[in-house]
Amino acid sequence: MIIDCHGHYTTAPDSVVYDGRSASYPSVTDDELRESVEDSQLRLMRQRGVDLTIFSPRASAMAHHFGEPAASAAWSRHCNDLIARLVRLYPGRFAGVCQLPQAAGEPIESAIPELRRCVEELGFVGCNLNPDPSGGHWTSPPLTDPSWYPLYEAMCELDVPAMVHVSAVTNPAFHATGSHYLNADTTAFMQLLQADLFVRFPSLRLVIPHGGGAVPYHWGRFRGLADMLGRPPLETSVMPNVFFDTCVYHQPGIDLLFAVIDAGNILFGSEMVGAVRGVDPRTGHHFDDTRRYVDALGLSAADRAKVYEHNARRVYPRLPLP
Amino acid sequence: MIIDCHGHYTTAPDSVVYDGRSASYPSVTDDELRESVEDSQLRLMRQRGVDLTIFSPRASAMAHHFGEPAASAAWSRHCNDLIARLVRLYPGRFAGVCQLPQAAGEPIESAIPELRRCVEELGFVGCNLNPDPSGGHWTSPPLTDPSWYPLYEAMCELDVPAMVHVSAVTNPAFHATGSHYLNADTTAFMQLLQADLFVRFPSLRLVIPHGGGAVPYHWGRFRGLADMLGRPPLETSVMPNVFFDTCVYHQPGIDLLFAVIDAGNILFGSEMVGAVRGVDPRTGHHFDDTRRYVDALGLSAADRAKVYEHNARRVYPRLPLP
Repeated sequence: MIIDCHGHYTTAPDSVVYDGRSASYPSVTDDELRESVEDSQLRLMRQRGVDLTIFSPRASAMAHHFGEPAASAAWSRHCNDLIARLVRLYPGRFAGVCQLPQAAGEPIESAIPELRRCVEELGFVGCNLNPDPSGGHWTSPPLTDPSWYPLYEAMCELDVPAMVHVSAVTNPAFHATGSHYLNADTTAFMQLLQADLFVRFPSLRLVIPHGGGAVPYHWGRFRGLADMLGRPPLETSVMPNVFFDTCVYHQPGIDLLFAVIDAGNILFGSEMVGAVRGVDPRTGHHFDDTRRYVDALGLSAADRAKVYEHNARRVYPRLPLP
Repeated sequence: MIIDCHGHYTTAPDSVVYDGRSASYPSVTDDELRESVEDSQLRLMRQRGVDLTIFSPRASAMAHHFGEPAASAAWSRHCNDLIARLVRLYPGRFAGVCQLPQAAGEPIESAIPELRRCVEELGFVGCNLNPDPSGGHWTSPPLTDPSWYPLYEAMCELDVPAMVHVSAVTNPAFHATGSHYLNADTTAFMQLLQADLFVRFPSLRLVIPHGGGAVPYHWGRFRGLADMLGRPPLETSVMPNVFFDTCVYHQPGIDLLFAVIDAGNILFGSEMVGAVRGVDPRTGHHFDDTRRYVDALGLSAADRAKVYEHNARRVYPRLPLP
């Protein structure tokens, strides 16, 4: 069985929009929902042999930067409800992950009721956690700051992980998918390296997407920084709780990821249909067809099963049984 | 001959300090200068067989974030003068690169006289350009914005390149060498991908350090983004003018860098003595002894000469002849 841990509902009907104050919540029909995924995510899942996608609202549209808590909460509920309906329409094909109603400067406590609703009432298996709800101004404290603890307590109680994933960027220095996403991955990892978050929350699980940002490429740098900062080795302080996906869109990148990161820490993912939708002229295949790169590694059967299924089941234990 | 393109004067005497308003400019003696590099940079250069280091003031101490233009200018002059004295004390061992007196919100024009002084009077071969003088708040426009053009005009006239290098970070979300530096590299590359800066400045040369941040690891992503954004291929729009160093502190990272980036775009560098000073317990050698990784590639003689010397001479044509 092949589980893709990283899919967003990037093909929601155009009528579903939000400008920070008011959102358009049209009554989308089941047929419209089906139409929005049949010829995109579901077709590509069939083509690529992916059985189940862990599916969340469009990351770039979480729009936490608008910063209006009530509107953000309503928008999150709406986006999460659409995911729940898709999960019900396609049993076994999608598992739901929720966006949280975050807003820069707002206590994270206000996001917890929506997490509980999504897990307990809608059957979701995880959440996306935005380490920078300001949208590229980085005004929030590091993820290891106690202000985030209430969310982690709820996640541990519910036994759900978070994917650390930023949203739209309003800072013109950054491009959302070209720099902001990758920077956030690198930033989050370094925050986790510097503190003892997992001593306090030993069962907390975080997925750092996009192959861990710059981290595996600079694995020697991070091992050396841990040493210089007097921190324990990454293998014992961070990696028991942190996982990278395979959203790295060329073979040499995937080769490096598996050369330096234990297969027990890698979850298959494609972020399909997402940041990069084109066909690589060098291969004739979609850049984001990451299964080709993983298959080409020639993993052992045991490692292959970990990366394609078992790690995902360990990180997201609420996934439906096969 | 082996040229290290990326060295900072991280071992300046402790008496040389700056707090944003007043700086301590003690009269450092030549003996003190010698003492500050003999047992660190020079010893390691000899050990590692490096002939010449392109040497600039300590990056993390450029302190542009204090934002006081007059103090920043005085501090830059002082730091650059120390580099010039070291270059004179060790002929042929160091070549000078200057820090610029930048300040967030200040027009870049105010940095140009110091660039001219360093190149024309002190014989420097390049400069370090900080894309985020705010220190991790990213308040400056992208490097492709016309507000930066006056500096590029001066650089082209003087025929000197810039290394794109941030300084200290005051934003608690980031760790200077663990995330801010790498994020800046990735951010700068994406800015260059999105615009036509090198159409306007065909002779402008920029070095993106730390192996290009996350870029080579995500080379497929950037190629795909260029395609999705309707931009020309990276090979024609960016790479004629952009160079990466080899400050990647483990063998798999260096392997990847050379697998995806043309040897004509890679300059040997170590950032020694810098971010990561320890010995890798897996190899028994310093993490930042990047010559070992490059040597282990088994490059052709032609590529080896490019990476160790010829590319640096092309990018920094004011380097002294051997």
